[in-house]
Amino acid sequence: MTIILDAMGSDDYPIPEIEGSLLASRDLGIKIILVGKKDLLEPILKAKNSNNLPVVIENADDVLEMTDKPVEATKSKPNNSMAVGLRLLKSGQGDALKRMEGVQRPALAAVFPTKNGNCVVIDIGANADCRPDFFVQFGIIGSIFAEKIFKKKSPRVAMLANGEEDMKGNQLIKDSKPIMKSANINFIGNVEPKELFKGEADVIVCDGFTGNILLKTSEAVGRLMTDIIKEDIKSTLFTKIGGLLVKPAFSRIRKMMDPSEVGAARLLGVNGLVFIGHGKSDSKAIYNGIKAANNDVNADLLGAIQSAIENQLKSRQEL
Amino acid sequence: MTIILDAMGSDDYPIPEIEGSLLASRDLGIKIILVGKKDLLEPILKAKNSNNLPVVIENADDVLEMTDKPVEATKSKPNNSMAVGLRLLKSGQGDALKRMEGVQRPALAAVFPTKNGNCVVIDIGANADCRPDFFVQFGIIGSIFAEKIFKKKSPRVAMLANGEEDMKGNQLIKDSKPIMKSANINFIGNVEPKELFKGEADVIVCDGFTGNILLKTSEAVGRLMTDIIKEDIKSTLFTKIGGLLVKPAFSRIRKMMDPSEVGAARLLGVNGLVFIGHGKSDSKAIYNGIKAANNDVNADLLGAIQSAIENQLKSRQEL
Repeated sequence: MTIILDAMGSDDYPIPEIEGSLLASRDLGIKIILVGKKDLLEPILKAKNSNNLPVVIENADDVLEMTDKPVEATKSKPNNSMAVGLRLLKSGQGDALKRMEGVQRPALAAVFPTKNGNCVVIDIGANADCRPDFFVQFGIIGSIFAEKIFKKKSPRVAMLANGEEDMKGNQLIKDSKPIMKSANINFIGNVEPKELFKGEADVIVCDGFTGNILLKTSEAVGRLMTDIIKEDIKSTLFTKIGGLLVKPAFSRIRKMMDPSEVGAARLLGVNGLVFIGHGKSDSKAIYNGIKAANNDVNADLLGAIQSAIENQLKSRQEL
Repeated sequence: MTIILDAMGSDDYPIPEIEGSLLASRDLGIKIILVGKKDLLEPILKAKNSNNLPVVIENADDVLEMTDKPVEATKSKPNNSMAVGLRLLKSGQGDALKRMEGVQRPALAAVFPTKNGNCVVIDIGANADCRPDFFVQFGIIGSIFAEKIFKKKSPRVAMLANGEEDMKGNQLIKDSKPIMKSANINFIGNVEPKELFKGEADVIVCDGFTGNILLKTSEAVGRLMTDIIKEDIKSTLFTKIGGLLVKPAFSRIRKMMDPSEVGAARLLGVNGLVFIGHGKSDSKAIYNGIKAANNDVNADLLGAIQSAIENQLKSRQEL
């Protein structure tokens, strides 16, 4: 298996990318192509790759910066590492990395930790405005994801809303409900954020705007709370000592909030596996992202999504 | 000043309502009308009101339950405590408790704690689907609220979005931006949830669906984190001892997350002050809600909102 990795993507590039790749290559026995400035990457890789693992470099002259505007940057920096990486993925698969046949809109899926497991939320940002027919496909794709990756039979699919009752929701939720009910998924209705975190659904469907607010609110509240607790623990000698003793009790929360544990978001509904990491990714995050990609390939996630979408189209024609 | 309080509204009614009212009446010197089942309320009030404070009862035969559907319940239970309370408010003010003249849609406003103060978010649930002209008025009303209640000069008004850049947002955000910019408010653009919690805006405008997800996600993440920390602190003797020592360091977080501190949400844009409390409200929450209502009256919040809306309408006619 070969993984193509944008080596200039994290805030601290390229060290996390190089270290994470070497770890993953050694552990999982896979080849990794690092895409980025050869002059920068080569000496670091040489110094660190003492075992001559199959981690190689593909040169990309340009680097995308946070201040770059996406549309302009694709013109002014045609050889940015992300674009070169995506072209590489495309060329390796013929004319792939298009939308999968029959898919209305590719969507970003992210795994949220819950009180007793995981929940995949789709869409967390690819489509700010959605239609009911997108929602049905998000439900189907999310359902396959939960089956293949969480190993969950008949995953519970819900729509994120401002109340569980049938009359709750905005117009999009109300319009989507009838076709969600008739789709070939285990649709359980609306859930609120608290049900998400209690683990009462395996798949949560929402528009990319709402999903993005959900994701970013979770991160922001988590950060605010830990910042304040950390600050206040330092305030007296007693609380400092208490803080040391109590430290092991925070490991589960730390793990839950750690972006390197949660892993990267997946763009689903395209003919290829594309992972989008957090800017704050460290080498562990890169390693976990590569591991997840490896797992997705072994589980044939793409093939399973493609079949499910084909079945949806077939059953529609039969109606 | 007289406050009308639904005595059957909290999960544990009517004890929190009676105790909170007595506290508020004693501290603030105001009269409170408790609306609810006289048979139930009278003996409790008599037993607790040892100082003969001006807390009186208005009978309402029916009680709304969580399982009641709002529309059906207004018919099957016409004399529920909330309806009787609202009629009482209406009769006291002539034909008031209608929409304020010129207001497109009344909205629910809630105060969020931030790293360095407070931020009012409007709308958190009254209007699941919004239009740009609603957004402008939410901005104006929120701005007056921040001026009057937070005592903030020229409050910073932002729209909640999935990114700060101008091209981010769903269609509603994009459509609203030009008129938000030209409105008579200190509009600072889009903010993400993390800017909210950092305290980088005083007023955040959003549709009621998104605002409700924001509110409920904040509560759910806060609860999940404290539940897990509490559980894990109990896991070993060392962490238990540490937990006791560290306890004072959690007081700020506890206060932040305490619904009885945050207070009730306000329905703004109607001719009257209507507070909607959390189901989990205890007597402190009721007390704080009454105190906030008292404060809003003293600050002439309603009058200020009415003038601001009148000015908006005038400046529109002048264009």
